[in-house]
Amino acid sequence: MKILRIDTGRKKVTGEQVPDKYMRFGGRALTSRIISDEVPPTCHPLGPLNKLVVSTGLLGGTSAPNSGRISIGTKSPLTDGIKESNVGGRLGVAMARAGIRAIVLEGIPEDDSLYVVVVGPDGAVLDDASQWRGLGTYALADRLREKYGEKMCALCIGPAGEQRLAAASIMATDMDGNPSRAAGRGGTGAVLGAKGIKAIVMLPMPAVKTEYRDAGKFRETASLFARELAVAKKGLTTYGTAAMVAAANAVDGLPTRNYTSGAFERASEMDGQALHDRIVERGGKISRGCHPGCVIRCSNVYKDENGEYVTASLEYETMVMAGPNLDISDLDALAAYDRACDDMGLDTIDTGAALGVAMEMGLIKSGDSEAVLDAVYEVGKGTLLGRLTGSGVRVMGKVLGAWRVPEVKGQSTVAYDPRSFKGMGCAYATSPMGADHTSGPAIPGRGGLDPEKRFELTDAAGQVELTRDLQIMIAVCDSLGYCFFVGPDITNMKRSAVLLNAMYGWDMSYEDVLDLGVSTLNVEKEFNNRAGLGPGTDRLPDFFYCEKLPGSGRSFDISHEELKDMNYNL
Amino acid sequence: MKILRIDTGRKKVTGEQVPDKYMRFGGRALTSRIISDEVPPTCHPLGPLNKLVVSTGLLGGTSAPNSGRISIGTKSPLTDGIKESNVGGRLGVAMARAGIRAIVLEGIPEDDSLYVVVVGPDGAVLDDASQWRGLGTYALADRLREKYGEKMCALCIGPAGEQRLAAASIMATDMDGNPSRAAGRGGTGAVLGAKGIKAIVMLPMPAVKTEYRDAGKFRETASLFARELAVAKKGLTTYGTAAMVAAANAVDGLPTRNYTSGAFERASEMDGQALHDRIVERGGKISRGCHPGCVIRCSNVYKDENGEYVTASLEYETMVMAGPNLDISDLDALAAYDRACDDMGLDTIDTGAALGVAMEMGLIKSGDSEAVLDAVYEVGKGTLLGRLTGSGVRVMGKVLGAWRVPEVKGQSTVAYDPRSFKGMGCAYATSPMGADHTSGPAIPGRGGLDPEKRFELTDAAGQVELTRDLQIMIAVCDSLGYCFFVGPDITNMKRSAVLLNAMYGWDMSYEDVLDLGVSTLNVEKEFNNRAGLGPGTDRLPDFFYCEKLPGSGRSFDISHEELKDMNYNL
Repeated sequence: MKILRIDTGRKKVTGEQVPDKYMRFGGRALTSRIISDEVPPTCHPLGPLNKLVVSTGLLGGTSAPNSGRISIGTKSPLTDGIKESNVGGRLGVAMARAGIRAIVLEGIPEDDSLYVVVVGPDGAVLDDASQWRGLGTYALADRLREKYGEKMCALCIGPAGEQRLAAASIMATDMDGNPSRAAGRGGTGAVLGAKGIKAIVMLPMPAVKTEYRDAGKFRETASLFARELAVAKKGLTTYGTAAMVAAANAVDGLPTRNYTSGAFERASEMDGQALHDRIVERGGKISRGCHPGCVIRCSNVYKDENGEYVTASLEYETMVMAGPNLDISDLDALAAYDRACDDMGLDTIDTGAALGVAMEMGLIKSGDSEAVLDAVYEVGKGTLLGRLTGSGVRVMGKVLGAWRVPEVKGQSTVAYDPRSFKGMGCAYATSPMGADHTSGPAIPGRGGLDPEKRFELTDAAGQVELTRDLQIMIAVCDSLGYCFFVGPDITNMKRSAVLLNAMYGWDMSYEDVLDLGVSTLNVEKEFNNRAGLGPGTDRLPDFFYCEKLPGSGRSFDISHEELKDMNYNL
Repeated sequence: MKILRIDTGRKKVTGEQVPDKYMRFGGRALTSRIISDEVPPTCHPLGPLNKLVVSTGLLGGTSAPNSGRISIGTKSPLTDGIKESNVGGRLGVAMARAGIRAIVLEGIPEDDSLYVVVVGPDGAVLDDASQWRGLGTYALADRLREKYGEKMCALCIGPAGEQRLAAASIMATDMDGNPSRAAGRGGTGAVLGAKGIKAIVMLPMPAVKTEYRDAGKFRETASLFARELAVAKKGLTTYGTAAMVAAANAVDGLPTRNYTSGAFERASEMDGQALHDRIVERGGKISRGCHPGCVIRCSNVYKDENGEYVTASLEYETMVMAGPNLDISDLDALAAYDRACDDMGLDTIDTGAALGVAMEMGLIKSGDSEAVLDAVYEVGKGTLLGRLTGSGVRVMGKVLGAWRVPEVKGQSTVAYDPRSFKGMGCAYATSPMGADHTSGPAIPGRGGLDPEKRFELTDAAGQVELTRDLQIMIAVCDSLGYCFFVGPDITNMKRSAVLLNAMYGWDMSYEDVLDLGVSTLNVEKEFNNRAGLGPGTDRLPDFFYCEKLPGSGRSFDISHEELKDMNYNL
């Protein structure tokens, strides 16, 4: 496998074989190590010393189910700490099959040039993209297909990334070629923008044949894995992630009106059933996979009342952060918001959280979905309102003088109120990524590494240990290329050892697989410490402690002392 | 001596004698200890758990020269760490003479009420101030004098503080009653605003007689001290702090156009001589003291061409951060900027730095003094431009996607380019206060605690040790009530032991006096660590390392490894 390095200052591309020290790392394990090894932790995320690494997982390009996600790592302009954000689309599988483990972008241009990195059979080149300056990602995807062919796939940024806004996402073209998949969190799009790169395009390339050590064993294991996964996640296939709306609402854990409530009186207007019915009724699509090899297919295509495409992959977190959180229940409004954020290249989550604070502070009227949409599209105009909307919840809070600001390490909390989802609160507080629902998804039914232990969702007991275990298993998933829904699961961890050994001829035990997660988390935590994000940043905002949820009366009751300085070592 | 506590949530005032544990602390030593003891380090600065402490120094109200400054301490909304900012005016001396060591403001109101805290002979009361909402500090000072009499003195906030903007200052009425003195740094005004307090007013009060242990010795020592200080600082008396303009320019250390140069080609238009001549020519005032008992009298009153008052205390740091830093050399424009910031209740320094970034990023035209003035006055209108202008340089950098952002721990660097003023750079990087020129003022001629050692301003050698020593001595000054120009000086430290012993009957040695500084810095550093500002935040922005000053070719060359985790223990 190869690593491509692109110096965006000198417009120079070089290639190298993956060095020995990185041979056993992919995805997040690799992006975090390259960032830790090569980026000074105290550097400015938008300056010349930061890098951006795109890496396939160790199982990328194989028949292991849901293993084609791609990791994007950098020093985050949102958190000022290390970041990994992963995304679907075709690029991960395409890169892996072309024998490219990672692409590393370095430096920044001295002028305001804008380029597309084109990776093809003859290597990588930089094409001038100045004619596409300011384009939304949908228009850009059209131009990219025109120029590079229908079979290309791409990562790209919208106006938010070009303006280097801290909540800018990197969008990936989906299975239909639409830029609907987001590496949303942490402002990775701003780093790509700072490097003057509008898109990374992969042209169709001849596959590099993978030599499996034991192809039969791999195939057999992967096949069983895929069948079981498809069965286990059937609810997701039908209702998508929106299935969580009703569940979260029922446990008083649905962020509503900037976390002033955990229950939304109009939740049934925008829950999984409502979304499903609306999509089916209008001839949209449910049960869509986000990348080749997905057997869960939790995604969707949302159409308007005329049957025209609006957006794809309308997800739970988007629907909540722009829905109950903004006092909005209209599905069309939520779909329009999702489309707008994708088009501007903006994280739907941090943006929703920021607008929630803006509503509380009176900048935008509560529940005003048109004002919300306007604010997002202001990003495309480069106005101050747009820039503010795209700068994440912490900056919004600062500028508006708010103190009820739902964020950890500068990144917004997500669609699970930590007063009811206590383990999720622990993940928000302690993850090196800042508040992140994917880093340790303590939702009902989830357990840790001790199969005997059971956890009550809303009870503080054992949640710190639970989040540690979940974070470790998720870090493994992120390093293998798995989607989040392969999930923190002991059986799948064991299965992954079998797959890795059958593929690479390694001799990894279950414990070795877990250690991939532990060591990666330790690398990330150490980077953050060196960057200035000390253990004191492992905290939840104080309003989660001192304000009770009006329904259940719950507050967050796991102290900072218990949370800080998480020890990931098993 | 007493401590007044005001619960701004329940509108309740209580008084207590200074408890034994705080008897030997005043000023910064006391504010930092109360904040550290009573404020959870992880709390939101604008939330109910933060406090704001106003304290006189240990020598406040005495005949020790320049000892009447008042310290304001809190958890800073700008740095998210601990803050002490001190200021002149009459209030420090008035409080000390009335036997009040400190005022502690706690809680936040549940509604948007606005009050004046009135401290008088009968204790403290809260007066409704809602009629003064949005008033600039100059108009407010007029109202306060009308209502509370010409002899009142006050701390107050402008629109910036009411809007809880992170660069909001607390303004103090000066010797003429104008709100020209600023506790500028760290956003203390935002905390006062969050507590719904528009002003703290002291009415004339009967003096509480101080029982000196050895009044003769005190008088004799203070008198000699005052005479020597007046002689030593004669240049300041004539030219004010603006005397530094030419000196900094000569050593390539004058921040110019957002730190792209250390020399300003039009410096002579706005240096100490030019300011002096302009003031004298228009019948303004030079050689003004900022508080009763000042023998240096470095301040001034600036008038316009019609002889009308514009502003007072036009200082070096303001003149540089809004002058060369913004490519402006017109003294009238600088005076108007100072007046505008004072009136809006905004730190001239962080605001100047923020506008420097805004110019580099094209939001405001370089050198456009009218646009600068407009931006500051937008604060009074509550527009997004105003809010952004008042939110400090880090937020401005974030919103505009800049990477050349001159800040440490969220607070802007000041009027000394650290590539030439190397020791000042060390102070910026390591001070618990964030970048702060007063925390360890390594200007020419300054030495540390070893009188044999000499330091070259522009040479890296020994600067970490120098800044440690200077920070310790300055922390002592800040705790005794001294103005900054008493300065980090071994003789004055020894003299202070004599004064404290003669006043309080203590038995403090020179080492004990230094330990007051050391222990205070350690309390602050520990608070910051617990708040999440780890050793990694002890750094300068990377552009000071990787961009050379065009004149001297100097870069900052003291590594993060040398700077981080400063050990203040002697």
